Amino acid sequence: MNSQVQTEERAFEAALGDAVREVDSLIDRLIPVPPGPEARVFEAMRYAALGPGKRLRPFLVLQSARLFHVARRSALQVGAAVEMVHAYSLVHDDLPAMDDSDLRRGRATCHKQFDDATAVLAGDGLLTLAFEVLAHADTHGDPAVRCELVSALALAAGNQGMVGGQMFDLIAEHRPDLDIGAITRLQRLKTGALIAFSCEAGAILGKAPHEVRMALRGYAHDLGLAFQIADDLLDVEGSSDATGKPVGQDAVAGKATFVSILGAERARAQARLLVDQAVAHLDIFDANTELLRQTARFVVERHA
Amino acid sequence: MNSQVQTEERAFEAALGDAVREVDSLIDRLIPVPPGPEARVFEAMRYAALGPGKRLRPFLVLQSARLFHVARRSALQVGAAVEMVHAYSLVHDDLPAMDDSDLRRGRATCHKQFDDATAVLAGDGLLTLAFEVLAHADTHGDPAVRCELVSALALAAGNQGMVGGQMFDLIAEHRPDLDIGAITRLQRLKTGALIAFSCEAGAILGKAPHEVRMALRGYAHDLGLAFQIADDLLDVEGSSDATGKPVGQDAVAGKATFVSILGAERARAQARLLVDQAVAHLDIFDANTELLRQTARFVVERHA
Repeated sequence: MNSQVQTEERAFEAALGDAVREVDSLIDRLIPVPPGPEARVFEAMRYAALGPGKRLRPFLVLQSARLFHVARRSALQVGAAVEMVHAYSLVHDDLPAMDDSDLRRGRATCHKQFDDATAVLAGDGLLTLAFEVLAHADTHGDPAVRCELVSALALAAGNQGMVGGQMFDLIAEHRPDLDIGAITRLQRLKTGALIAFSCEAGAILGKAPHEVRMALRGYAHDLGLAFQIADDLLDVEGSSDATGKPVGQDAVAGKATFVSILGAERARAQARLLVDQAVAHLDIFDANTELLRQTARFVVERHA
Repeated sequence: MNSQVQTEERAFEAALGDAVREVDSLIDRLIPVPPGPEARVFEAMRYAALGPGKRLRPFLVLQSARLFHVARRSALQVGAAVEMVHAYSLVHDDLPAMDDSDLRRGRATCHKQFDDATAVLAGDGLLTLAFEVLAHADTHGDPAVRCELVSALALAAGNQGMVGGQMFDLIAEHRPDLDIGAITRLQRLKTGALIAFSCEAGAILGKAPHEVRMALRGYAHDLGLAFQIADDLLDVEGSSDATGKPVGQDAVAGKATFVSILGAERARAQARLLVDQAVAHLDIFDANTELLRQTARFVVERHA
């Protein structure tokens, strides 16, 4: 590894670490625990949103906002909101009624740590708080920008995005006959829409022109697909020590994935191709794209 | 019954019927069923939001909006959003993880009609769609007003309102020792906050001054408490044919209610007193308050 690559990697890891600390510190302030008996749901929300994690989505918001010289405070608010939505989706997804998972990132899932009812409510609370944060004056001085953020997040998270994707995913289980087109569409709904929101949020905050926003959407689209393929590969080749959850679950469930259809070798090649494609979308920007380029590489090379 | 009272009652029932039809027709347009496999979650959302019901919250939005001559289209958008939030809260509340109810308004609850996973997602989808609707340009021409609606609904529905109240309620079950202060606070969080939002929404849409908004909040506060006492009375004295759900559940659960603490007679007197108080808050308005006055009476005299 040459020294320039090492320096770049160190800068990337430092930026990622800064983002985790700053976003977590804001989430910590946004969910204070009150004195009443309802404190329990606040504690469960904190457990879910402040647990170990990469904070990839807030990082994408921060980096896309940097392209337009958006105030860091604004970007952090949106980053906290999108992380809350991501955390809520995991809490509900892990419920016995859904995936019934006991372990997430090496810890008990929210309903295991608390109980099922509290986990349902904690997810509901996180989703609701995300919209409260976006609509708050701290997020942007212009209410039109805040409204656009609310609309875009609702579209990405709702039944035409993430919720629709979760429904699709539940129906797709035990359907090993799904083709690559169906799996791609499923991924775009279930995880792609929220990643795309995270990348477009900077452009919304910076009131960027339409074609710039479309470039970021193109980047996000390829990044999201590469991310999903990497996830499928980790389920086949990863260790549960590194991922903090059981591996080999897709094969047990008889689930069609990019890896089950393409095979590991072609899937890996496809992920690398998508990373190159993602990075090419950033060519229209003059500066400040290094960290977004690194993110794309990080996403397929990660081990957890 | 004299003829003026009869005429007023008929006008009230006609207005309530109109509101149900208009709100349902808008919700029907806001949740079209797409072709993909995710259609199932859209169907479950429609089942939950378009089932039988009084549409009391949208009616309160429409009537408070009338005080400020707000366009009916704006008020209907907010009415549809608040009904979606109400419907989502019932879907999640009925889940096996929460109250485990099979029957609601004489029909199978959402998770009984579909399944638990679909019901979790349908609730999530309705909550998310409510914010999308509020942020949409159709709701109001001024983005500052739309942002204020998003903030106010998030506060009313979130962990400092309805979600916090549900948490409190779960903990309060099997606690027959709660006093009237604790029960009042529980009610204000669990059902009062969303009723207050519905009444204040008209003032937000009409950009009304602070003191006017406070009068509507006062009306809503008393109305909400009266509504809860009437609910507790129905659980003791109502018929399950009329309410469409089993009665006597509170006593079986050993739950402290207004009726278990005050007794039926004093609880009924208290509800009537609250109705008079609620109506008195409307004295600052010159006109168009008849239907809000009638609503307060309807709320304590209903049989379902």
